[in-house]
Amino acid sequence: MSRKLNYGMIGGGPDGFIGAAHRRAIQLDGNAVLAAGVFSRSMEKSVQIAKETGLDSDRCYCDYKEMAEKEAQREDGIDFVVIVTPNYMHFEMCRAFLEAGIHVVCDKPVTVTYAQAVELQKLAEEKNLLFMVTYTYMGHVTAKHVREMVRNSDIGDVRMVMAEYPQGWLAFEDNSGGKQGAWRCDPEKSGNVNCLGDLGTHVENAVAMMTGLKIKKVLAKMDVVVPGRVLDDNDTVLVEFENGASGVYWTSQVAIGSDNALKVRIYGSKGTILWSQEESEKVTVIRADGTITELHRGYESIYSSASKYGRLPAGHTEGWLEAMGNLYRNFTECICAREEGTFSEDMADYPDIAYGAEGLAFVEACLKSSREGNVWISLSDI
Amino acid sequence: MSRKLNYGMIGGGPDGFIGAAHRRAIQLDGNAVLAAGVFSRSMEKSVQIAKETGLDSDRCYCDYKEMAEKEAQREDGIDFVVIVTPNYMHFEMCRAFLEAGIHVVCDKPVTVTYAQAVELQKLAEEKNLLFMVTYTYMGHVTAKHVREMVRNSDIGDVRMVMAEYPQGWLAFEDNSGGKQGAWRCDPEKSGNVNCLGDLGTHVENAVAMMTGLKIKKVLAKMDVVVPGRVLDDNDTVLVEFENGASGVYWTSQVAIGSDNALKVRIYGSKGTILWSQEESEKVTVIRADGTITELHRGYESIYSSASKYGRLPAGHTEGWLEAMGNLYRNFTECICAREEGTFSEDMADYPDIAYGAEGLAFVEACLKSSREGNVWISLSDI
Amino acid sequence: MSRKLNYGMIGGGPDGFIGAAHRRAIQLDGNAVLAAGVFSRSMEKSVQIAKETGLDSDRCYCDYKEMAEKEAQREDGIDFVVIVTPNYMHFEMCRAFLEAGIHVVCDKPVTVTYAQAVELQKLAEEKNLLFMVTYTYMGHVTAKHVREMVRNSDIGDVRMVMAEYPQGWLAFEDNSGGKQGAWRCDPEKSGNVNCLGDLGTHVENAVAMMTGLKIKKVLAKMDVVVPGRVLDDNDTVLVEFENGASGVYWTSQVAIGSDNALKVRIYGSKGTILWSQEESEKVTVIRADGTITELHRGYESIYSSASKYGRLPAGHTEGWLEAMGNLYRNFTECICAREEGTFSEDMADYPDIAYGAEGLAFVEACLKSSREGNVWISLSDI
Amino acid sequence: MSRKLNYGMIGGGPDGFIGAAHRRAIQLDGNAVLAAGVFSRSMEKSVQIAKETGLDSDRCYCDYKEMAEKEAQREDGIDFVVIVTPNYMHFEMCRAFLEAGIHVVCDKPVTVTYAQAVELQKLAEEKNLLFMVTYTYMGHVTAKHVREMVRNSDIGDVRMVMAEYPQGWLAFEDNSGGKQGAWRCDPEKSGNVNCLGDLGTHVENAVAMMTGLKIKKVLAKMDVVVPGRVLDDNDTVLVEFENGASGVYWTSQVAIGSDNALKVRIYGSKGTILWSQEESEKVTVIRADGTITELHRGYESIYSSASKYGRLPAGHTEGWLEAMGNLYRNFTECICAREEGTFSEDMADYPDIAYGAEGLAFVEACLKSSREGNVWISLSDI
Repeated sequence: MSRKLNYGMIGGGPDGFIGAAHRRAIQLDGNAVLAAGVFSRSMEKSVQIAKETGLDSDRCYCDYKEMAEKEAQREDGIDFVVIVTPNYMHFEMCRAFLEAGIHVVCDKPVTVTYAQAVELQKLAEEKNLLFMVTYTYMGHVTAKHVREMVRNSDIGDVRMVMAEYPQGWLAFEDNSGGKQGAWRCDPEKSGNVNCLGDLGTHVENAVAMMTGLKIKKVLAKMDVVVPGRVLDDNDTVLVEFENGASGVYWTSQVAIGSDNALKVRIYGSKGTILWSQEESEKVTVIRADGTITELHRGYESIYSSASKYGRLPAGHTEGWLEAMGNLYRNFTECICAREEGTFSEDMADYPDIAYGAEGLAFVEACLKSSREGNVWISLSDI
Repeated sequence: MSRKLNYGMIGGGPDGFIGAAHRRAIQLDGNAVLAAGVFSRSMEKSVQIAKETGLDSDRCYCDYKEMAEKEAQREDGIDFVVIVTPNYMHFEMCRAFLEAGIHVVCDKPVTVTYAQAVELQKLAEEKNLLFMVTYTYMGHVTAKHVREMVRNSDIGDVRMVMAEYPQGWLAFEDNSGGKQGAWRCDPEKSGNVNCLGDLGTHVENAVAMMTGLKIKKVLAKMDVVVPGRVLDDNDTVLVEFENGASGVYWTSQVAIGSDNALKVRIYGSKGTILWSQEESEKVTVIRADGTITELHRGYESIYSSASKYGRLPAGHTEGWLEAMGNLYRNFTECICAREEGTFSEDMADYPDIAYGAEGLAFVEACLKSSREGNVWISLSDI
Repeated sequence: MSRKLNYGMIGGGPDGFIGAAHRRAIQLDGNAVLAAGVFSRSMEKSVQIAKETGLDSDRCYCDYKEMAEKEAQREDGIDFVVIVTPNYMHFEMCRAFLEAGIHVVCDKPVTVTYAQAVELQKLAEEKNLLFMVTYTYMGHVTAKHVREMVRNSDIGDVRMVMAEYPQGWLAFEDNSGGKQGAWRCDPEKSGNVNCLGDLGTHVENAVAMMTGLKIKKVLAKMDVVVPGRVLDDNDTVLVEFENGASGVYWTSQVAIGSDNALKVRIYGSKGTILWSQEESEKVTVIRADGTITELHRGYESIYSSASKYGRLPAGHTEGWLEAMGNLYRNFTECICAREEGTFSEDMADYPDIAYGAEGLAFVEACLKSSREGNVWISLSDI
Repeated sequence: MSRKLNYGMIGGGPDGFIGAAHRRAIQLDGNAVLAAGVFSRSMEKSVQIAKETGLDSDRCYCDYKEMAEKEAQREDGIDFVVIVTPNYMHFEMCRAFLEAGIHVVCDKPVTVTYAQAVELQKLAEEKNLLFMVTYTYMGHVTAKHVREMVRNSDIGDVRMVMAEYPQGWLAFEDNSGGKQGAWRCDPEKSGNVNCLGDLGTHVENAVAMMTGLKIKKVLAKMDVVVPGRVLDDNDTVLVEFENGASGVYWTSQVAIGSDNALKVRIYGSKGTILWSQEESEKVTVIRADGTITELHRGYESIYSSASKYGRLPAGHTEGWLEAMGNLYRNFTECICAREEGTFSEDMADYPDIAYGAEGLAFVEACLKSSREGNVWISLSDI
């Protein structure tokens, strides 16, 4: 890193964990320092975060528009913004910062509609700005190793992908999911989708990044399980990939006992890969002869393009925060490399706005499939 | 048991493991002794088994029809027959023995078509004979415990069932699956279905028996993955149950590294049950508060209707053979109880011909769904 | 097998599981049939078992001496006897049958003292009879595979062995261990040792057979944990092997939650082997580069000297009964091979009386070490 | 936190991971900022770290004595120092900073001899300074939960503790352990102990903190396994606690395949607790009835005194860095609380110098036991 970057944050107030998590993840490598923010719609809460983080009070803004504008004018203005608000707010915010010439990091799903995501993608291209969507799990060293294995045909051609992301926190009628659960299940805020937008996009992204496969078409069954709910809380999607492989994606918020259980199983013509985000320190690889091998982060058996992200020796467990930190490390390095003229496309290793848009295309295709009675919808029709 | 029963066997020659497995399973309790058989189309091979098992040579028959006829006439004729031939042969064989007044045990899937299965069901009823279909896995003590838990609403209403049965033995183009693989993949012998018939019926039965749920409709995607193959070797089925719950069933023969990996996950309104046939000594139960409890066979935490089948204390692992033996124990006890007039319906604990027919209805609905482009097919239309 | 053998049983009445377990294990292959027995000191209970097993009432004897004598005189007398009484009774019984010229199978520990075991060993040699001690766990296919790996130096020289066998059934003051627990904890019946005799001998045998290492000396700490108890219920033994390797053996009956948790971890100069009897379908092998491989019974990666004992394909779980059955299979084959003159020493694959004696030497050395204040005792001093 | 603290670091240069790890752990909460340092004996390397961390060059000192002296004089001098050099250097460094009136954090084992540790303990008391020894693993939320469970007698009286910490990185003769391995195995630098000092102290501390038990006496066997080595690389310690409970501690550097496998199993009169640092997101609890329950960090089943340290919801895995960060969080909060006058003894939750001294007493007792032929040594004799 030629210099330490400045970043701002929209959202991430004291009522949720996600803002602090992003700030901690960035601090892991210290490539950027928090320099501006609108942490809450409540100025009081926003100031509370500013104080906790040691932010100058004059850079704790009332609203994101003011912040985009003023930061763009400062010599020491933020290099990038981190947007961690509920997703129905993302689009306008992202657009404002892109238009102000500021790189953007935005939580997933990046927008509510595919059209919005495509607009942001175009805008970022026009403005020549970087745009990262924080699909956290792709930051895991082992996830990157899986991707490299598939790229190198270590398991031959991919034939079948079983991917799932069940949670249990919204299993009950008493809406014990708190504030988070409230907006997610509220059609006014979440649009037409709850579970599939929140978890399904993670699944779609994980498979897309790990396997490199493109989805040709989907057939989705979106269930509303808990009585009194309007939006989906349990979803199954049949997938056909362009290479002819099949996939099954399952996401749920009513699977009691499941926390953050994103699991991807990739079956190839020469072997199998099993990966689980809750056990991200290892990856299980099965060769054609059926022997099952467990690879651990920190060993030489991990591809260097993945292992380079490790911060600690094997057995010193890394987790969610390190995964998020790895995304930020790569993103900030890319910003600096571009400034210095040393950037090349293959350096960028983070989920970008193209992946973000892909996620929304997936969601819209699923919604259409579900609405039309669980029929196949081509992604090219979205 | 008031007396030791006699049984005969059709199939189970020296080239496969299944005949010996059934014979060993029956020997576990010794409720019946092998008294007649046609173990192979080759008389030489058949006689080899007769010798190994100490069977009288005059009860080693040339063909099943002769055996049915002659055994029916003997005073000490067989009480039941065990049919473990490839499934395209089942129907005629089952019918012959039923018509001869002999109870039948038949491997799954019980027939090739639903109509055949229904015919056998009617015939068994007319003849007042017992008919067991050897869905082995439902013999596991823990499987029976799961069924009892669901019956008792221990996890509330069932909302979602994830069930799968992947194998890897037919993943390769060289057809390394041997004789077994050859007939399974041959449309002349297997009819229209391979993987879904072999494994899908196990999944369907496991879910049906464990949850008591009835399938309303299915939407099936049946893939032919390995080049050069004609029949399905990877299948996904979306299921809607009559109570409104959803299900996803996956079966595969191309999942390298999977042996016999039947797994059922049942998500209810008050908890979750996880069961895996390869780890059948335990069952994982998750309560509404999210704590995960592992119950072991042999402990008092297992319902007595299930634990009564255990033969060894906890930690003395029981497996596949015990599961199969449990089916036979109950079946032979039912035969004796009927003789003695002590039989009551709730005593029968084995998968009967009604379950066998249900399995074929499921397969036919899936075939229809797949043929018509992955549309929903009601089981009532089969 | 040239012929089916006859066997008798001493012990194995209706109050315990062990007799039925041995009978079932023998039935798995059917190499021998039950032909005589004294199943209980109560003639009534003994006759009950005779009836259940279909044994002729004239071969259900009043006491073992009568049985040894009469069976030795019969043309169709038993070929071998199976002794499954509490171990304080073993010595006299074994001696009686050996003197009657009948091969012996005896539960472990084979006697109460080392001297007794040596006497039996000599007697068996003099009489040219086979003598198996049923260390069940060494019948597991994977245990045999581990032994072959070590023999072939697959993990180099063995440096360290961690072995343990905790149970939890005697953890409570209320003596909830039943009849079994009662005699085990009673010095009048068990002599000077409880837990170390029951479980420690299993550990000693498992390590001895798997690694081929000979113990040079031991240092034992034998704890009496539960108030009111006289004999050990928790034991730790430091071991030094003749090749200089170290070992730690731990056995306990107060480890709540442990069932039959025999585990052996073998650390060599080129790799590691992890084996657990409760998960006996697999063995974990770690190579020098640290990658962890799981081998499953039923695959070609298992040495043929081990895999030949498998009865079912991979994924069709085998367990405790199959392990016991494997011991009997080998033992009965050896008897037949000797009759036919085809026997060779390397054919015998079962734990013999030499291993039985070794177990008692181990126990006595531990008792001496414990009594003398946890000092090193050489096995050559026993 | 009333204010952000300043801290300095001794050691932690570019050749090892441990310095960066401590710095990242402190950054997690940001309670303190790096303000001074001597990162390496090479000024060049030291400056490299200063640059990377944005440290003012005038606070990058030539040696620790200068730093202690100058920082003590500055108004904005460091509040505490973090010492992460090889342990033979700790004593002088710790003393220098204590004498300069600066709180100390020191890596474990805190000194080479027990006498040195006691001297530091006294000095800290005299100077009224806080002293933390970074036994990292006690920062895990689940480790704190275990401690609380034992305190609350959730598993009754502790009867037996099995604890182990195997590693495999020094298993080979080629000394592939690098610079770290070199000094650890060098008697000139490590004194009389290698493995037991590095790993054994972790085990001792984990058991001490989790169970609250005091060691009465030890019997140690310290092996030198790898040819050509002088110091121990595999150690077993029998432990007797003051309450009469038994313990077995095993540490190794030659256990190929083991990374950082600290595991503690606590057997009580009413249940069992299983804890593994490599799976620190969960803890397994077994009740008297034998049912096995898995508790996950992030759920309400975790005691609040432990769960308050969690930064992320369940399923968002926390690891080694968070554990270390938790120690620093508590330590820095204690410093502030003392400044503000709100400090109370029960607030301090970190491993202090008393624990550090206890670790050295343990090591010395083990050394004595080993030297005298594996005899019992009372800790009161050290």
